[in-house]
Amino acid sequence: MRSLPVIHRHGTTKRYSDSTAHQGTVYLVEVPSLEGGDIRAQTSNLLANVDARLAEAGTDRHHLLLVQVFLTSMDDYEGFNAVWDHWVPEGTAPARACVQVSALAKPGWRVEVIVTAAVPA
Amino acid sequence: MRSLPVIHRHGTTKRYSDSTAHQGTVYLVEVPSLEGGDIRAQTSNLLANVDARLAEAGTDRHHLLLVQVFLTSMDDYEGFNAVWDHWVPEGTAPARACVQVSALAKPGWRVEVIVTAAVPA
Amino acid sequence: MRSLPVIHRHGTTKRYSDSTAHQGTVYLVEVPSLEGGDIRAQTSNLLANVDARLAEAGTDRHHLLLVQVFLTSMDDYEGFNAVWDHWVPEGTAPARACVQVSALAKPGWRVEVIVTAAVPA
Repeated sequence: MRSLPVIHRHGTTKRYSDSTAHQGTVYLVEVPSLEGGDIRAQTSNLLANVDARLAEAGTDRHHLLLVQVFLTSMDDYEGFNAVWDHWVPEGTAPARACVQVSALAKPGWRVEVIVTAAVPA
Repeated sequence: MRSLPVIHRHGTTKRYSDSTAHQGTVYLVEVPSLEGGDIRAQTSNLLANVDARLAEAGTDRHHLLLVQVFLTSMDDYEGFNAVWDHWVPEGTAPARACVQVSALAKPGWRVEVIVTAAVPA
Repeated sequence: MRSLPVIHRHGTTKRYSDSTAHQGTVYLVEVPSLEGGDIRAQTSNLLANVDARLAEAGTDRHHLLLVQVFLTSMDDYEGFNAVWDHWVPEGTAPARACVQVSALAKPGWRVEVIVTAAVPA
């Protein structure tokens, strides 16, 4: 018999979990808690949410592996980076993709991120 | 000498594999088998394909880690969720991202998903 | 005490790393080094960059797990595939997603990819 995989979830609803972790890797998706505000306000809010999700999973922003950034406008690229560059601890930046999509699930959202990070195994 | 990584693939063509698995994690991408139909029909079809791919890899929908959903219209968001919410086993929902893209590879497709799931190691 | 995760990074700047690796999996994002040129030129350039990043991480294109392709136009789908199909070693193709986004970070870029690959643990 092969061993069954153990998945650690947080904030699980019918539709999604706030995070899932398995064998030393955690996955989470974040959107802003607010629908208004400019890109800096939304990014600050979203990255604070990421910090909270990482803490729940037993890790932190020093252990990012891959971050995918979805913006609704590349006009927000500089504003996102201004907050991001300050948030990422020096020497620990993850691989990062950034693309502009046509829309996110709520009209007021300007940014959504997918985070893959390392957690103690 | 470090050990060489062993990758388990299914449905490998010149361009892509239906799934790849490595050290307890499986990756797969699904699109609908049909180009017509509304979002509910395409989603039901696509998620049945996901079930088949997960089974080939030795796991199932109880072990989802991250699902990325690409829709061609947010008008399809509710229809996708109606099928999704019924398909996901209670208490096992993955982290989930959902964005609207400009187009998928075939004009008739309304949805594409990327699935990361746990498999017995 | 659980053991701290060890992350191997290459090309780390304030904003991103060229690649990050953890427990046998490497993550990297690539864009073309040139902003001009057609899709074949940009794809050839980008995939050569991927080869270089994989080599730095101690692996190669035979060990791809998942590749996400973001194109700015599906008119470039055939051109991308023409280069891709020649580049992927027979029998080793990864799971692969391909979507059209509204824009990438630089106006001249036609393609961006996210690569997940296996590395010796």
